Formats: sequence, structure tokens, C-alpha cells
Amino acid sequence: MGSWEDNVRRVVPYTPGEQPKITNIIKLNTNENPYGPCDGVLNALSGLNGDNMRKYPDPSVGALRSALAERNGLAQEQVFVGVGSDDVLAMSFLAFFNGEKPILFPDITYSFYDVWADLFRIPYEVKPLDEDFQICLDDYRAPCGGIVIANPNAPTGVLIPAEKLSTLAAAHPECVVIIDEAYIDFGGESMVPFVGKYENLLVVQTFSKSRSMAGMRIGCAFGSRKLIEALNDVKYSFNSYTMNAAQIACGVASLEDEAYFRETLDRIIRTRERTKERLRGLGFTFPDSSSNFLFVTHPRLQAKELFAALREKGIIVRYFDKPRINNYLRITIGTDEEMDTLIRFLEEYRPL
Amino acid sequence: MGSWEDNVRRVVPYTPGEQPKITNIIKLNTNENPYGPCDGVLNALSGLNGDNMRKYPDPSVGALRSALAERNGLAQEQVFVGVGSDDVLAMSFLAFFNGEKPILFPDITYSFYDVWADLFRIPYEVKPLDEDFQICLDDYRAPCGGIVIANPNAPTGVLIPAEKLSTLAAAHPECVVIIDEAYIDFGGESMVPFVGKYENLLVVQTFSKSRSMAGMRIGCAFGSRKLIEALNDVKYSFNSYTMNAAQIACGVASLEDEAYFRETLDRIIRTRERTKERLRGLGFTFPDSSSNFLFVTHPRLQAKELFAALREKGIIVRYFDKPRINNYLRITIGTDEEMDTLIRFLEEYRPL
Repeated sequence: MGSWEDNVRRVVPYTPGEQPKITNIIKLNTNENPYGPCDGVLNALSGLNGDNMRKYPDPSVGALRSALAERNGLAQEQVFVGVGSDDVLAMSFLAFFNGEKPILFPDITYSFYDVWADLFRIPYEVKPLDEDFQICLDDYRAPCGGIVIANPNAPTGVLIPAEKLSTLAAAHPECVVIIDEAYIDFGGESMVPFVGKYENLLVVQTFSKSRSMAGMRIGCAFGSRKLIEALNDVKYSFNSYTMNAAQIACGVASLEDEAYFRETLDRIIRTRERTKERLRGLGFTFPDSSSNFLFVTHPRLQAKELFAALREKGIIVRYFDKPRINNYLRITIGTDEEMDTLIRFLEEYRPL
Repeated sequence: MGSWEDNVRRVVPYTPGEQPKITNIIKLNTNENPYGPCDGVLNALSGLNGDNMRKYPDPSVGALRSALAERNGLAQEQVFVGVGSDDVLAMSFLAFFNGEKPILFPDITYSFYDVWADLFRIPYEVKPLDEDFQICLDDYRAPCGGIVIANPNAPTGVLIPAEKLSTLAAAHPECVVIIDEAYIDFGGESMVPFVGKYENLLVVQTFSKSRSMAGMRIGCAFGSRKLIEALNDVKYSFNSYTMNAAQIACGVASLEDEAYFRETLDRIIRTRERTKERLRGLGFTFPDSSSNFLFVTHPRLQAKELFAALREKGIIVRYFDKPRINNYLRITIGTDEEMDTLIRFLEEYRPL
């Protein structure tokens, strides 16, 4: 009568960047923030007591949603939160992409999109970036089952102006358009102001990068009331309580310290611009990045070899062994000191 | 060309028990533990630093899985963890129930099972409990797409001996048999010792009840290496990092204090047995419960009215307006003092 294994969902999981257990390294492989979160975040943790532990958290996550709503000039009913933007995106794919037409996203982008599509059996088509790694918006004009665009895109760092992207939402009333703004705080203009205008626009953000809280897993989405209600229905059909007491308290605390947030962002952006110059000086090329990483290549170096040589010296960056990008490295912007160490290594690097 | 709403997944979400924001109440509606977790859990929170925040957590959740493995005499590869047992069960439904035959579960049981089945379009059949709310294992003998049994069952509290339940796993090599042991620590014998014997047996547990950590959302599952690998593949296809730094640290700390865990359980069990006697004295009847709640009815009282009268006095219990059980109340075991207040109210209660 067959085996239980016949009924197992076959998937090819996403491979996250390595989280090495050794500490004496320069970790520039998963776009983490080199600076910790504001003091309020750690204080919020110490403020939790036994009652916060033994009782269920607020399933509607009202405190965090209303803080996010206020900061973005929206109503709480226009805000969704989840366990990192991955959870938010997974729930969104499950909630919104149930049509028969394929959903569309670029060939080079966050490599979780096709994993979610496969997981939920959603048909999809990829649209190639042009030679300069720019998204060709004209490829996204025909009716489809949905659209997902990371802006800035990953792993390229390339930004599209919000006004231009908004034309996609306007052109596609038949489907949900998801803009994944994981890196928007590092220099882009958010699409959040457009969610009041387009009922079908979902803007996804995360606390993992600009808010230094990858370890806490907090993501959020902004959209019309109808869109957020449909997303919440699916969330409540999956897990009533996705956000724990610590996530809620820390998330709220992070939003309360705007000054620290801005200061950290400024530091990272300054380091990024400085790093761009130094890398250009060494002959590296890269699409101009509005994120906290650079996607670099070099006319005379093999990325894979350089990746291994860096690793040897305890500098970990990200290499994707995939068509079109297998001679590139994605390098997270760390502290000035970390980037100096990287540059010194590159200055002296001579491939075998 | 239609509306985005045509592509939305239609679901009827699970309704969790109310989490009232007022504090001056006796909350006996969501089977929370009346006692906080061991001191180590709160200490673990204070031990987290900025690096734990800014960096991604270990996606494999090695520290917590190995602590769970050790406590249960298993290998880490036989342990899965998630955001509460709801997350673990949702992922399991998604991973294991992809056949065309219906999955089976009782008509009266945890009311999330049919929600997950609907969410993932899994065919299912419910098998009625007998008149005493006992599960009729003979109804589960024919080949099927999967089996889900809560043991003790919810909201009845009725326990099946592990040895007897294990016959299901033996009889069904063609599908995965999930035993949901959310309440097992309150007096049942776990099926975990059988996971080495049956490759298709998944045993799910939670830190929310017996470990006083509903607010932290930690669930786990034990199974064969093959089963856990398939479950992890689906998890990594949904969200690489479901467990945050706080969950991991607190979960490990909870497992380190076995003495406190046992002591709390003993207190709750003593209160439960004492409450059973008092309620019987008042003419209530209920299936014998091995959990931290009682599922009570009274020959001369209307459950719905009693529910409202209790609520009026700030005592919140759970009422399910569903066939067969709409004259029952599910009452969580709180502290002795809380149960005394409840009993005093019931002694004096005279319906209009």
C-alpha cells in the first residue's frame, strides 16, 4: 500500500548564508548590520517577566502594528507583522498567488522567491535583468498572477525609483504586486506612501538589516485594509501566535529610537560610499548599490577563487554559483575597520 | 481582467481563545500555566546582547534541538523545533499530507486540524468520538492519507495509553501518524520512546503549557531521521530562521531546570484532582482528564449561560458553540486560589 514517503512534499529548500560558529572572523555574507540595536531593545528584553512568558502573546500583535502604523502614517489595519520578512513573504505567496497565470519576478533576485513558488505549487516565470542588472519593467506589462520585485534588488543592490515602480501596481488590478523593501532604508524611497492609492500593492520590510535585529526575526508589510485582512486570515489559519513576547517588546522599542536608527544608517551609508571608491580604485566593477552590500566583479579575478581566498583569511562574503552571477561576490558593508581589512587583503591579493 | 481578490486563498481561520487586555481577571480559557517559568528562563533573556540581536540566529537551532534530543534520548537529527506546536503542526501538514486519500482525525479535537487541512487543500474525514468522548481506534484502521490524534485529546482531556496508540503507527506504513502531545506532561505517557521503532510516527510537543512559556512560542517534534529531514526541508522552504535568539536561549534554559518543571507539574496535577472532586460534589460531570483542563457539563445548567455568568464575574473559561459540545465548558486548571474562587462562584450560582 505504499510508503508514507510517497505523500511527502518534494522541495528544494532555500540555502541561507552560512552562520559560522567560530567568532574570530569578519562576517560580510548575510547583510547583517555591523552595529547592535538601540539600548532600548535590550532594555525591553530585561523588562519581560514571568507573566509575559506563561501567557500567550496578543495574537493581533497590536502594540507593534500600531507603532509601525504610526511611524508610517497608516492605520493598524494596514499593517501586518511576521517572523522576519521571509515569514511575511511566505504567507503572502500562500495568500495571494492562487491564480492559474504565472507570477513574475526577475531571473536574478532574492533566491527565495522561486522556492516559495515551488513550495506552494505556484506557476511562475522569470524575467531577465538587462546586461547592467537593471529590471526591465516593460517585461511586466501583460496580465499575470502576481509580481514580486525586490527594491533595491538583491543581490545586485540596484534601486528603481518608487514613482516608476508604482506604475506596476496601477497596471495590474488583476493581481497583487509585492515590493520587497528589505534594504530600502539604506538609501531608497519607500513605496509605503502608495499603499493608500493601490489596493493591490503590498510593501514588505524587515527589522533584520537597517534595525540590527536579524536575531529577533521581525518583518512587516503595509497594504490596503482588504489586502492585510486577507493576509491575516491566512496567518490565523497557519499559526495564531507567530510573534512572541520578546519580538513584540523589542520591535516596539526599536521604533522608539529614531535618532539611533538614523545615525546607524548614516554610518553604514558613509562606509558603503567609501568602500565603493576603494573597490573602484582596485579595478572592481559593480552596479551602483543603494543597499548595505555591494555586488562586485573584477575583469582579471575569478570570484570563486577570491571567495575561497578571503575565507582562508577569515573574511566571509557570499558567492552564488548560478548562471550570469557566478563571477560576482556579494559583500556586506561592515564597519570601517572591517572594510579596511578587506581592502588591504584585496590590495595584496594575487591569484595563483 | 478580474481583480486581485479572485486569486486570494479563501480560508476560515482558527479562532484562538480570547487574550483580554484587562488584568483583574481569572483567566482559565487558554490552558496557560498559572506559574511562571523557572528563573533560568528570565536570566537567559538578560544574557542576550547586541550581537545576538544584529546577527541571524543559528538556522538549524542546534542548541535547542540538542538539548531536547538529550532529554529524550534521541539524536538531534530526530528533533524539529518551531514557533509553538501550531507552527510545527502547520509545517507537518504541509510536508506530509500530499496524498489523495483523506487524512483522519476525531470530530471533537483541537479545532485547528481542519483549518490546516482547508488551508493546504488536504482532503480529510472526521471520525466521531463515542458517547463518552473516547477515540475509537478501530475507525482508523483503513489505509488513509495520514492520522492526527491529540493525546490527551483536546478539549476533552481524555488520554489513550501509548502502547495502544502505537498500533496506529504500526498499522499505517503508508502514511504519517501525528500524535499531538501538547498536554502529555500533565499525566500521560509520551509516545516519544516509539519514534525509534516507527519511521512514520511524529510526536509533537510544546513549551506553552507544562513549561509555562506560551508567550515565547516554542514547539517541537520528535520522529525518525527521515521524517525530520523531510519536515526540515519544508521549513527551510518556508522560512530559514523561524526561531529567534530569545526563543533559543529561553528554551534551552527551561530544559536545564528539571526540578522546577516537575514541581510545577505536581502542583497543577494536585490542584486538578482537588478541583475534580469539588466539581463532582456540585453535580458536574466530565471525562476524566489527564491534562491541565477539565471539560465539564452539568445536568441542570446551560453551559452558555454559565459561561456568560462567569465572565460577568471576571472568570474567563472557554465555550465552544459546536455540535455535541455546546453544553460543555473547558476550564483551565489555575492556582488553588483561582480554583477556589471558581468553586465558590459555582456553589452560589443559581441560573435565572
